[in-house]
Order: sequence, then C-alpha cells, then structure tokens
Amino acid sequence: MNRKNKYTESFIIKKYLKKLNFKKIESLNFDNDAGFLKSKKNKNIIVTNDTILENVDFFKNDPAESVANKIVIYNLSDISAMGAYPYAYTLSLSLPKNKTTTWLKKFTDKLLSLQKKYNFFLIGGDLSKSNKIVISANFYGYISKDKILTRNGANINDDIWVTGTIGDSFIGLKYLQKKIILKKKFQNYYVSKYLYPSIKCIGYKIINFASSAIDISDGFYGDLEILLKQKKLGANIQLSSIPLSIKTKQLIKNKSINIKSLLEAGDDYQLIFTANARYSRRIKRISQQYNINITNVGKIVKKRGIYINNKKIRFTNKSFQHFA
Amino acid sequence: MNRKNKYTESFIIKKYLKKLNFKKIESLNFDNDAGFLKSKKNKNIIVTNDTILENVDFFKNDPAESVANKIVIYNLSDISAMGAYPYAYTLSLSLPKNKTTTWLKKFTDKLLSLQKKYNFFLIGGDLSKSNKIVISANFYGYISKDKILTRNGANINDDIWVTGTIGDSFIGLKYLQKKIILKKKFQNYYVSKYLYPSIKCIGYKIINFASSAIDISDGFYGDLEILLKQKKLGANIQLSSIPLSIKTKQLIKNKSINIKSLLEAGDDYQLIFTANARYSRRIKRISQQYNINITNVGKIVKKRGIYINNKKIRFTNKSFQHFA
Repeated sequence: MNRKNKYTESFIIKKYLKKLNFKKIESLNFDNDAGFLKSKKNKNIIVTNDTILENVDFFKNDPAESVANKIVIYNLSDISAMGAYPYAYTLSLSLPKNKTTTWLKKFTDKLLSLQKKYNFFLIGGDLSKSNKIVISANFYGYISKDKILTRNGANINDDIWVTGTIGDSFIGLKYLQKKIILKKKFQNYYVSKYLYPSIKCIGYKIINFASSAIDISDGFYGDLEILLKQKKLGANIQLSSIPLSIKTKQLIKNKSINIKSLLEAGDDYQLIFTANARYSRRIKRISQQYNINITNVGKIVKKRGIYINNKKIRFTNKSFQHFA
Repeated sequence: MNRKNKYTESFIIKKYLKKLNFKKIESLNFDNDAGFLKSKKNKNIIVTNDTILENVDFFKNDPAESVANKIVIYNLSDISAMGAYPYAYTLSLSLPKNKTTTWLKKFTDKLLSLQKKYNFFLIGGDLSKSNKIVISANFYGYISKDKILTRNGANINDDIWVTGTIGDSFIGLKYLQKKIILKKKFQNYYVSKYLYPSIKCIGYKIINFASSAIDISDGFYGDLEILLKQKKLGANIQLSSIPLSIKTKQLIKNKSINIKSLLEAGDDYQLIFTANARYSRRIKRISQQYNINITNVGKIVKKRGIYINNKKIRFTNKSFQHFA
C-alpha cells in the first residue's frame, strides 16, 4: 500500500531530522528502516515508550517546543527512575498536513537542544500523516547488568526522598485551563513550568543505594502509592517537608491554592525514591553536586496507607497508564 | 495531567496484555514504566519502528487479527532485512473507546500466535485513548556485532534474489477496493494475502554472504531502486523469472491484471537481496531448508536504472517513509 507522501518525507528527513542523529553509526545515516543499539559489556539497555496525543497530552496550540519537551521529559524521567542514563531514542511522528515547515523547525530545534543537554541522539523512526498530532518515542538508557531500580523494593523505615519541587506544572495547567487566577508576575513562571518541565537525570547516581524509585507523572500521592502497594506498605509524610517553590508557598499562604490538590495531581516528572537512612549524607552530596533539591519528606512504615501528619489520606487517583 | 482512564487500563493489561510477556524478566512483570533489553556478548540489537493508522494503513473494519498481523509483519520484515533474528517488542496502543473487549481479545490472541510462530515477546508499552486506532511498535532483533546487512552494499554482477511471490497482497487490496473483479474461488486467497501477509525471517541466514537486502513494502521496483541508488547502479531483470503464485499467473494470462502493476506497487514484505553468484547453491539450500521460494530474478549492472528484458522502465513510486 502506498500510504505516504514520499517526496515530502525525504525532504523532512534531510532538512529537519538529519541533525538529530549526531552522525552516530547506530542510525545508519537514516538510510535503512532500522538502526541498532550498541551492546556494552556489563550493561543492559533500558527501554521506555511514551505516546503523546493532541488534545490529550497537550493543547492544540501549545508551542511545538513544548511538545518536543514533553515527549523527551516523559521518557527521560522513566529512564532516570530505573537508574539508567540516557543513550538514544526512536521517534514516530504522525502529523497533520499543516504542521510542516515552521512547526517542524521549532520542534526539531528543541529536540536538538534537549539532546545536547541530556546527551542522547536519534536512531531512527517513522513518519506518517494524520488528522491530529501523534508522537510516539522509545527511549534507551544504559544500566548495569546486575542492578535495576524498580518500584517494588521499598523497605520499612526507609527514608522517602523527592527531587525538585512539587506542584508547579499543575498550577500552570490550572491557570491555562482558567481554573485559577494568577497575578501577572506569576503567570509566566507557572505556564513555563507546565509547558517545559525540566528534570535532572540523577537516577544512575542513586542506583547503588536506593531501594525503589518512580517519576511523578500522576501526582505525588498516586505515584508514591505505586511504591507502596506491592509490598503492602505505608508512608508517613510530613506536610511541612514537601518541597515547594517560593511562589507556590505564597499561593498556599494566600489560599489561592490548596496544597492537597498539588499532591493529588500534576506531572512534574521529579523522582520519588526510597533509601535506608544510612545513605542520607550521600544523598545530600548528590544534591549539591547536581545543584538539585533532594528533600526527605517522610518514612516508609508498616501500616498500610499514606499518612500526612499522621492522618490517613483517601484518594481515588490510581495511576496505571503503562505496562512495563 | 491525569490523562487516562486508570481502571480500564489496569484491567486491559491484566486481561489481554499480560499473556504476551511470556513471563520474561525483561518486561519486569509490566510493573514499571520501562523494561530492558538483555545485552548479549558479540551481539548488537537492531531496532525498528512502525506506526500504523486507521484509514491509512488499514481499513476501519479490517479484522483486529489483520491489524495485529500488519504491525508484526511490517516490523519483522525490517528486522529480517537487516540480517537479525526477532527478540522482543514494545507496543503503544491508542484506541477508541468502542474498541475494547472483543477487539482487544482478537488483536492480542493474534499477537500471541505470531509471537509463538516467530519467537519474540512483549517487553512493555503504553495505552491511551484516541478517536482512531493508532498502533506504534518498536521491534528488536539480535545481530552479530561485526556484521550488518544494509541497503547500500550491492556490487556489479551480484545476483538479485526475491523470496516468496510478488503481487498477491496488492491484488487483494485492489479487489477490496473494488478496482478489480475476481472469480469467487480466488477471492479468499487474495483477501487473505492482503490481510495476513506472511514471511519467513531468513535474514540472519543470509547475512554472511548477502551484499544488500530490503523488504518489499512499496513495490518491487521502488524497493529495488533503493538498493541501487546510493551506488548509482542498475538492475537487469527477466520478467519471466519474477516469482508469481499460480493464481496470479492465471490472472495475468486472462489479462485480468497487468504484471507491471504488480511490480510497481504492493507490500508483500518479502525480501529482495543481492549476493555474489558463487553463493547461488547456498541460497538454494536455504530455500529448501526453510521451505520458501527464493528466486534469482536478475543481476546488478553498472548502467543506472532498472531494465526489464533489457528495456529501461520509468517509475514515479519512490519510497522513503522511514528514517533509519
């Protein structure tokens, strides 16, 4: 079946995508329908997959740069949460006819800058036409053969740690949805946190001592619950220790926003991880080295459930949108 | 952003997808957002990516089993064309609400039977809702570190070989599109060849001697041209040697169909490969061993272009829908 507009695609590859392969041999110069992943001694290759859809994961008129940022951060946060470091990716782009030159230029320029920042490259992919934008990517990261950081390893009395700050992206979304009002001087900050979430890929730095980890893609509670459920554990969280940006602290103080709503939803792509208390100094050193907040927010406990200041919370937001 | 219906997805994973991981450790029991690929000594991992869309790559009412067959064969033929053997895959499913239980049961049962036939398993993936069916998959295959079969290696005087038969899938498509009329006794055969193209993954058996290879996804001419263009070579093809099914030979004899239309279009996912003439006996042994036709259809020549019975053909169907 001749399903695609060949001329345009050859042009798109040459003009917009070629720069993303960093001339790596794995991409076979984009001349084949496949590329390859290099095996490294004592390493396995983590693979993660995310698809983002117009009107579901982003708004129709979101900047192309934001869409690029999302597909990268969604996937890199998974790579990091498994304790791996980024290596490469494949990209499947289904685009409406009108999303051509200008959109693709912005989209691929942003990909390029993120590739340089996080050190990974494009192996290959697939182009097709569709009514709405659909972007699917598989990301690869290297990990030691004898270690893997999963969601099931937390132990009673482990400390619970969170990177970065919580809730900024969610406030940006609510503002764009006109569900909250923000002072002018706050608007840019939160919109940018929603459109351009940013992370540090520190997963491979904690793999030697962390007992479990997850990236926050469905709210702090929902993702923490995933770390607890398999071993039927609980978590004691101190509300005052939840890391918030200075602006968010002000919004809470003004009662513009409720801290609990920030914990129930929002995709900041920060890590939650657990570790034995004896690693606390080591974690603080990593925090300094990478210039990133890593905050102890509580402890794993035997009693099932999530307890905020010793009160059990109820929530309905269970997250399970991926398999493996 | 809470973008997905959590309950349904957890249910879908358990009921329909879990059987596809063959309990392999690489899938991490579908408990994480990522899985991993095992490195093997002296092997790299081929990766290929295909996205298929409703109304573009298949008809809305095509059987779910046919959609499953397509996403597998599209990708396995790429794996085979690189000289690799199948290992595993990730799957991203975007489905309309109404495509639930019955559709998913048929779709995943067909995946399961293909996984058993070709010996590969599901590592993980992503589920989301959309208006139309969008299925994206990345397939992985193992390949020796020191060898890779590409599209650019053909040499002057190499024999040109084709597996299977040409044109059956295309005739099935034309019949379904009501562009040709078929006798009743032929209808099932061709519709089945279109809906369920089938291949043998012999790529890893020819990698030690083949100089180039490609799978036929855009017609014999278009894909042969890709093997020729980089080194600016030509091909002499004997029309009488093109492998056709007995039924197709009858259709051509009756003038129901023109053989040239079969060479210009159609996605049979068979391999075209080139090899020095001294490997001809070895190729015939592989043909017997795998019970598959492998037919010598001509030779690579210095003079640029494709020549059928010594007459240069013109064609407009250039294929370039993938990059790497």
